Amino acid sequence: MSVRDRVVLLVGGVGGAKLALGLAHVLPPESLTVIVNTADDFEHLGLHISPDVDTLMYTLAGVANPQFGWGLAGDTFRAMEMVERYGGPTWFNLGDADLGTSLVRTALLRQGRTLTEITRQLSRALGVGPTLLPMSDDAVRTVLETDRGSLGFQEYFVRERWQPVVHRIRFEGCEAAQPSPAVAEALDSATLIVFGPSNPFLSIDPILSIPGIRQRIAGARVPRIAVTPIIAGQAVKGPTAKLMSELGVDISPLGVVQHYRELVDGFILDEADRDLLAPIEALGVKVTARRTLMQTLDNKVDLAIALLDWVEEDQL
Amino acid sequence: MSVRDRVVLLVGGVGGAKLALGLAHVLPPESLTVIVNTADDFEHLGLHISPDVDTLMYTLAGVANPQFGWGLAGDTFRAMEMVERYGGPTWFNLGDADLGTSLVRTALLRQGRTLTEITRQLSRALGVGPTLLPMSDDAVRTVLETDRGSLGFQEYFVRERWQPVVHRIRFEGCEAAQPSPAVAEALDSATLIVFGPSNPFLSIDPILSIPGIRQRIAGARVPRIAVTPIIAGQAVKGPTAKLMSELGVDISPLGVVQHYRELVDGFILDEADRDLLAPIEALGVKVTARRTLMQTLDNKVDLAIALLDWVEEDQL
Repeated sequence: MSVRDRVVLLVGGVGGAKLALGLAHVLPPESLTVIVNTADDFEHLGLHISPDVDTLMYTLAGVANPQFGWGLAGDTFRAMEMVERYGGPTWFNLGDADLGTSLVRTALLRQGRTLTEITRQLSRALGVGPTLLPMSDDAVRTVLETDRGSLGFQEYFVRERWQPVVHRIRFEGCEAAQPSPAVAEALDSATLIVFGPSNPFLSIDPILSIPGIRQRIAGARVPRIAVTPIIAGQAVKGPTAKLMSELGVDISPLGVVQHYRELVDGFILDEADRDLLAPIEALGVKVTARRTLMQTLDNKVDLAIALLDWVEEDQL
Repeated sequence: MSVRDRVVLLVGGVGGAKLALGLAHVLPPESLTVIVNTADDFEHLGLHISPDVDTLMYTLAGVANPQFGWGLAGDTFRAMEMVERYGGPTWFNLGDADLGTSLVRTALLRQGRTLTEITRQLSRALGVGPTLLPMSDDAVRTVLETDRGSLGFQEYFVRERWQPVVHRIRFEGCEAAQPSPAVAEALDSATLIVFGPSNPFLSIDPILSIPGIRQRIAGARVPRIAVTPIIAGQAVKGPTAKLMSELGVDISPLGVVQHYRELVDGFILDEADRDLLAPIEALGVKVTARRTLMQTLDNKVDLAIALLDWVEEDQL
């Protein structure tokens, strides 16, 4: 049994999708399961939108918009242009082909299918090899308490462009939510659990907020490795650094490790943060410095290889 | 008070939209109200689709697809291509921009707005001058009893391409349906009521199936004129002639006049059917022969002028 046999990756959206793509190039499809945050899901214009699931699905299918990382390559926006003409809400931009995904998902949900079943059907139709699993079939929703009041994730992230100051983050419904049977099974049989370089507070925490997931990870007897979303005091993308500051967390890989506490055995930080190797090691977490910025496909594959090799060689 | 002051036109889709466009070129916007069949409305992919309302709206806004008469000019079909990739239902083709209309309508319906209010908002946004009114805010649904079983309108018309043999047509919900206040007011204050050259059985009958509409038209003391949908034993488009045959109705303007019975005072047939002037007159219905085929905008305007002039001059 190798650590490579059943790798489970926890992710949010664009950042996590990059590592997922790297791992998908290195592992056979049956050896990679990606558990995706669904606390960003929301109803918009009557559609059930699962932004992170779609980002992962499109990325792994090779059809994602290369510029943004989300949405579909070459998509058009005629439907939203009409919505705008009618005075409808346009702050969340959905491409036309992207709408096709949300339409089918929404229709299948109304027919009583689970998000897990639907994600399997859609990702297979797009030719995705690895298994993509929504973290739960139950609704968990990220709510941010901010200086502009209580905001849903997409209101905060897209409509308000993460400008409000965040005091607190809640995951509504998390206590009652169950991991889907597929998520439970993936975690129970994992040979390696990886926390993607996603926002710890907005992408990974929602996954960990589900008791049945958190307990399984806390009790796992396999290596649990986190990849840093922070490089040299900066987030690669998005509000991670700003949020950490607002929540009083050290904007550094050390802050991330402290946040994950007893849930991780190993940590990959960026070469730019070598000075933090010792402080992290002092917390009892194994740590290594690698190139973690994943701008090209080669970067992604290299980081995936480095991660797997490190875990294997160091027998974490 | 002239008959031109408050013209009310009853229509279904493409055929009726042509006469509506003709009248819209001749009458000031405040003098034309179009009451549109909504018994073809259906839920598809979670969207509330109002095909006839949209056809009228797009036609009067000058943005309809000139080739088909329905849908939007120059629209693309990326969303439906994705739906097809996912194995979803593609028998009802919705363009991308057209989807924008259905998304906004569906979202507003879910917010509790009426179809009448929504149609006003959307048609104004597109610059439509005349008043477009869905026949009712209550759901009435056309169901066809056929040799392939009971079919909803769109299943019969689009999915099965009107090939099944029809035994009977029902309008589910018609007995309980109320005309909207705006429809009731338009009929009560009409100076002229025109039955568009739409399918009498599938487009006009659903409107007349609502007791509060039928009674108002039956009791109206203003001219009520029907324009033939049949020319020389043929429908201009669609299943009208086939249906009339299956329902045992004479496929001719005479059959149409007999179908409308006591609801019309006057009838415009095509010049090709001059031989039916006397038989129709014998039924006590005033009748005139005109060019009714509306291929060009000039044809539409000419027919609208001819209709209004005839009613005025003959003091119907």
